[in-house]
Amino acid sequence: MATMKAAIFVEKNRIVLDDKPIPEVGPLDALIRITTTTICGTDVHILRGEYPVAQGLTVGHEPVGIIERLGSQVRGFTEGQRVIAGAITPSGQSYACLCGCGSQDGPDTRHGFRAIGGWKFGNTIDGCQAEYVLVPDALANLCPIPDGLSDEQVLMCPDIMSTGFSGAERGEVSIGDSVAVFALGPIGLCAVAGARLKGASTIIGVDAVAERMTVARRLGATHVVNFREGDVVEQIMALTDGRGVDVAIEALGTQGTFESALRVLRPGGRLSSLGVYSSDLRIPLDAFAAGLGDYSIVTTLCPGGKERMRRLMAVVQSGMVDLSPLVTHRFKLDDIEAAYDLFAHQRDGVMKVAITP
Amino acid sequence: MATMKAAIFVEKNRIVLDDKPIPEVGPLDALIRITTTTICGTDVHILRGEYPVAQGLTVGHEPVGIIERLGSQVRGFTEGQRVIAGAITPSGQSYACLCGCGSQDGPDTRHGFRAIGGWKFGNTIDGCQAEYVLVPDALANLCPIPDGLSDEQVLMCPDIMSTGFSGAERGEVSIGDSVAVFALGPIGLCAVAGARLKGASTIIGVDAVAERMTVARRLGATHVVNFREGDVVEQIMALTDGRGVDVAIEALGTQGTFESALRVLRPGGRLSSLGVYSSDLRIPLDAFAAGLGDYSIVTTLCPGGKERMRRLMAVVQSGMVDLSPLVTHRFKLDDIEAAYDLFAHQRDGVMKVAITP
Amino acid sequence: MATMKAAIFVEKNRIVLDDKPIPEVGPLDALIRITTTTICGTDVHILRGEYPVAQGLTVGHEPVGIIERLGSQVRGFTEGQRVIAGAITPSGQSYACLCGCGSQDGPDTRHGFRAIGGWKFGNTIDGCQAEYVLVPDALANLCPIPDGLSDEQVLMCPDIMSTGFSGAERGEVSIGDSVAVFALGPIGLCAVAGARLKGASTIIGVDAVAERMTVARRLGATHVVNFREGDVVEQIMALTDGRGVDVAIEALGTQGTFESALRVLRPGGRLSSLGVYSSDLRIPLDAFAAGLGDYSIVTTLCPGGKERMRRLMAVVQSGMVDLSPLVTHRFKLDDIEAAYDLFAHQRDGVMKVAITP
Amino acid sequence: MATMKAAIFVEKNRIVLDDKPIPEVGPLDALIRITTTTICGTDVHILRGEYPVAQGLTVGHEPVGIIERLGSQVRGFTEGQRVIAGAITPSGQSYACLCGCGSQDGPDTRHGFRAIGGWKFGNTIDGCQAEYVLVPDALANLCPIPDGLSDEQVLMCPDIMSTGFSGAERGEVSIGDSVAVFALGPIGLCAVAGARLKGASTIIGVDAVAERMTVARRLGATHVVNFREGDVVEQIMALTDGRGVDVAIEALGTQGTFESALRVLRPGGRLSSLGVYSSDLRIPLDAFAAGLGDYSIVTTLCPGGKERMRRLMAVVQSGMVDLSPLVTHRFKLDDIEAAYDLFAHQRDGVMKVAITP
Repeated sequence: MATMKAAIFVEKNRIVLDDKPIPEVGPLDALIRITTTTICGTDVHILRGEYPVAQGLTVGHEPVGIIERLGSQVRGFTEGQRVIAGAITPSGQSYACLCGCGSQDGPDTRHGFRAIGGWKFGNTIDGCQAEYVLVPDALANLCPIPDGLSDEQVLMCPDIMSTGFSGAERGEVSIGDSVAVFALGPIGLCAVAGARLKGASTIIGVDAVAERMTVARRLGATHVVNFREGDVVEQIMALTDGRGVDVAIEALGTQGTFESALRVLRPGGRLSSLGVYSSDLRIPLDAFAAGLGDYSIVTTLCPGGKERMRRLMAVVQSGMVDLSPLVTHRFKLDDIEAAYDLFAHQRDGVMKVAITP
Repeated sequence: MATMKAAIFVEKNRIVLDDKPIPEVGPLDALIRITTTTICGTDVHILRGEYPVAQGLTVGHEPVGIIERLGSQVRGFTEGQRVIAGAITPSGQSYACLCGCGSQDGPDTRHGFRAIGGWKFGNTIDGCQAEYVLVPDALANLCPIPDGLSDEQVLMCPDIMSTGFSGAERGEVSIGDSVAVFALGPIGLCAVAGARLKGASTIIGVDAVAERMTVARRLGATHVVNFREGDVVEQIMALTDGRGVDVAIEALGTQGTFESALRVLRPGGRLSSLGVYSSDLRIPLDAFAAGLGDYSIVTTLCPGGKERMRRLMAVVQSGMVDLSPLVTHRFKLDDIEAAYDLFAHQRDGVMKVAITP
Repeated sequence: MATMKAAIFVEKNRIVLDDKPIPEVGPLDALIRITTTTICGTDVHILRGEYPVAQGLTVGHEPVGIIERLGSQVRGFTEGQRVIAGAITPSGQSYACLCGCGSQDGPDTRHGFRAIGGWKFGNTIDGCQAEYVLVPDALANLCPIPDGLSDEQVLMCPDIMSTGFSGAERGEVSIGDSVAVFALGPIGLCAVAGARLKGASTIIGVDAVAERMTVARRLGATHVVNFREGDVVEQIMALTDGRGVDVAIEALGTQGTFESALRVLRPGGRLSSLGVYSSDLRIPLDAFAAGLGDYSIVTTLCPGGKERMRRLMAVVQSGMVDLSPLVTHRFKLDDIEAAYDLFAHQRDGVMKVAITP
Repeated sequence: MATMKAAIFVEKNRIVLDDKPIPEVGPLDALIRITTTTICGTDVHILRGEYPVAQGLTVGHEPVGIIERLGSQVRGFTEGQRVIAGAITPSGQSYACLCGCGSQDGPDTRHGFRAIGGWKFGNTIDGCQAEYVLVPDALANLCPIPDGLSDEQVLMCPDIMSTGFSGAERGEVSIGDSVAVFALGPIGLCAVAGARLKGASTIIGVDAVAERMTVARRLGATHVVNFREGDVVEQIMALTDGRGVDVAIEALGTQGTFESALRVLRPGGRLSSLGVYSSDLRIPLDAFAAGLGDYSIVTTLCPGGKERMRRLMAVVQSGMVDLSPLVTHRFKLDDIEAAYDLFAHQRDGVMKVAITP
């Protein structure tokens, strides 16, 4: 039986590279030979045992590669084609998908569906920090890479670009809006780019790391606010002449950023939350106008599927958004443990790493 | 100077009927002679000092009456016409109104607007538990009562019908949805009716008062759940075969109902909050799928304006919704202190009272 | 090889019952034994050669039946289960489906998709006026019938209920709207019911057949207008006090109804078109306010998929809409040629026929 | 009585500069001293007698100026402030405005409103090609110009920027969309900029004038198509790999552009029409998929009001869109007849003219 190398979750604080059989291809699957992948903040949660996955699972959910083999029912693609798939792989055929919640897909329960079920790679099935990955429901999830785009140019599409943009989309950013983005990690930076793409005229990025603030400006932030240099809410209210923002995007997952996001909203504004939280959240009564402020709080899990990937790669191809500055480090798959070490400790100004088998 | 009787907030626990000058009519105003009004739960908050208003303010925000005098700039109406105005009286001309947040209207600040600014009657200007009330921005707020409708038939339009329906509207209830409504006071009952009007096929009302549950069924609830007879979340999950509801409407304003509303939502569902809260809210991590469940939490303050009133009265006129069972007691304005006593203590199965000067 | 009876298009004006092999079941398919089906106006277009289909194709797109055999990849269902499938059978996995246009599904073209591609039964694959039908992409399309509902109660779900309701949905009917529905055939009657379900307070049905007008009133029409008894536009403007309607639903497919629908719209109103047209349409300059009236014209092809079917059956089960009066005649499959004859000539006040193998 | 100079419609083919009294200021009005204005294509229709206005009416609807005097009820502004007002001046208080159709505002009829009623300047009241203009409902319509912006920088906001952007907005352009814009006059160029602002990744401009195509590229067009160099529909289908566009924006007002816009749409696409038509339109049966293609046709009249103006000026201020290349010629008000002559004959590559009293 042919084997491949794969980054496997062994136990808390141990993700190791090991040999695993190359998976069998079912009728609806496609086997992809990975050419580039990356590590996500969520993978670090897995590493630390904060998000539980099965022992022995291959980690990773951002695949760029080449079709090695197609399942018998997967038409319209050819072996050898360069493709990506989203981090979230909706089947397109479940109750969740058919009611417009593809990210909440998963096997139908008797009458419904489970939260987060659409996230399968490196969560409920083997992921793509490996030489090969099996893409489920390949018809709905494989998307050919347009000619002329490199692996690194499309590496952000499967997750952080889709997630970050969705922060602006679900926040319903419209032309002339003011937007604040809390935390300028890769997701927050993509939220800045998404707000710009949707026509916001004032985009305020919040962070304290100078490099991130610089990248934020390149991606469209009109202002950056350093939370170490004064009260964030006051700074944003001052920048908006006391009006507050139309949309606040939370991209970290903490009580502090969530609460500040709420406090800078104008009445009727929308808090679009992207962060993964690790404890209960508190909504302060005053910031919420006691429930009478017409506020909305919306959350989003990364949209997937081939149409989403097609659109994101079209944006990259158009040159409107250039996320290449986010790839700060490169590793061979053989060195992925070192990559985890660097990324988990956020050393050397790392934003995203590119991993190549 | 002519005087009138008016229910005035004096101090905590004292709203009294007293004499006040009949107000002068400015160019944009209309003076309405009240023929019927009512008491709202919010007025009880005012009475108890939980919601602060100025000493001496006339209370009440649900006016049904007759145009006594029109300001010089108010065209298209005639003195003697029967009209209502909404509890919320948007000017139509502020930044808030022009960006679609009429309920958050109020004097423009330099560049923005304040939360809840659209609620003026009995909050920032004299209200309508009086013989006369001055309607501001009358052009935008007066709405003629269609022939054939009685005062009591339209008495719910200014506030609770508008508020309750908006719970279903902002929750984006669609055909075939399952909806749960938490607490079957007047607002919750109107939310039940609103969910029905928007095509929900399963409407679950939650309360413990038998009369309210009976009225809920008349207004469209397909099921009622008694929170004293078992865990509410379990009961609702059972009624929906484990699927949960598409929309949960909170109509009380407590942590318990808010939290239950979140727990019964299917992934991707919407919590539409109508309650007035009196303390911080907690969002439990698990019920929120750590921020990854595509949930929405939306809040709404009663929509106002003459077009809203026109539509609500059209619904009453069509016979689709009959809210007359909600008026359980009737008082003369002279006896309003007794009415407050009854209503504040929720005696005698009171739902809404009709007050007639 | 086992055979079955099937209604087959032979040539213009000839649909005949003939023997055909029972189809083989592929991995993604389900074979359904039909227990009840019906004839649609579109089938009559096929019969008359006005809508071209391949010679030898089995006609019909409204299946109610029992799962006879499931493809190897179709999980979550059991043989022997009572199910329906929509007239339109989206795969859920094409570019069309993933951008929210399931009815325009079909094999992806290189980069896009073709109009009407989601309509497969009796159009591009064998239909269901037969003893058996093969449901493609069964995972996305089979929907179990709730206990207690008869075949006839759900017979309208696959097409006319879904189509008619979509007229109100795409017209964005909201609470308190005025709606006019042009032509009260089965689709128009379902549009009336849909407008009612979405909270319209004035629903004006237009036709000239007394029986249809009577059924329209039972389904929610507040007024009916006989186009033989005066100018339709004038009658509707009078009924709306000169205001016009918020939404006009076209349910016939002619220039006359399309044009009248446009003429009765208030500025900013929406014309929701359901009809299948057979010639170019003309938009009169004046009715269109020269392009400056903020009008919308939207068209819809019947939404399908199992979630849609689940919701429609939930509406039937709730008792909110009872379409049983639409089934006016019943035939055995053996007599389907007679059923076509009756239905095509609209004899005996026929609205819909039930066909049982 | 003080007089001013004003461009007045006298009769077909005669707009002349003449003396007129400076208007009296009513309680709701503001008198603006015009510092810059422009001529619109619609004004040319008026000049040619194709769009009827009253003899003696002052023409023009794009005001930039300084507040000279405020009506007694107009608070929150100061005399001497630099302001603009939209071409369309909604009152904010009519049924039209309160149901979200501000451009269709106007005096309420008994129960409704008239099409195009929101366009008042130079149509139903005196316009702004004059030394002074009276702004009706000033509270809703005056918008202060941010410091640092010149008259010419904001001159496009009142009409063509608002109109052009609305083409993209009503077309619901979303991230990654393909958009075609038919005709690259000032409105079409602004539609290109609007599509870019809303995240379209492919924007195809259609025209035959080289200068306009060049400006289109500067404003965001990724491709331009010359309709003289081959079939427009074929060229656009080729540029989109046979897929067609998600949104087609019509910005001329002819059968040819309307029809081409429909023919390049993918199924489910949206035709967003901005043009002012002068004859009936024809919808070809095939391009419309016989009514079954899920197409939408939406029309828009320039959105107005101070919030809209505030947002558009925020976009200008952000530097995201620079429309200054559109002002190709400058005239004193005294020479407006020459300006009309140049503009009406589209000589000298004129796009927009700036007129300064």
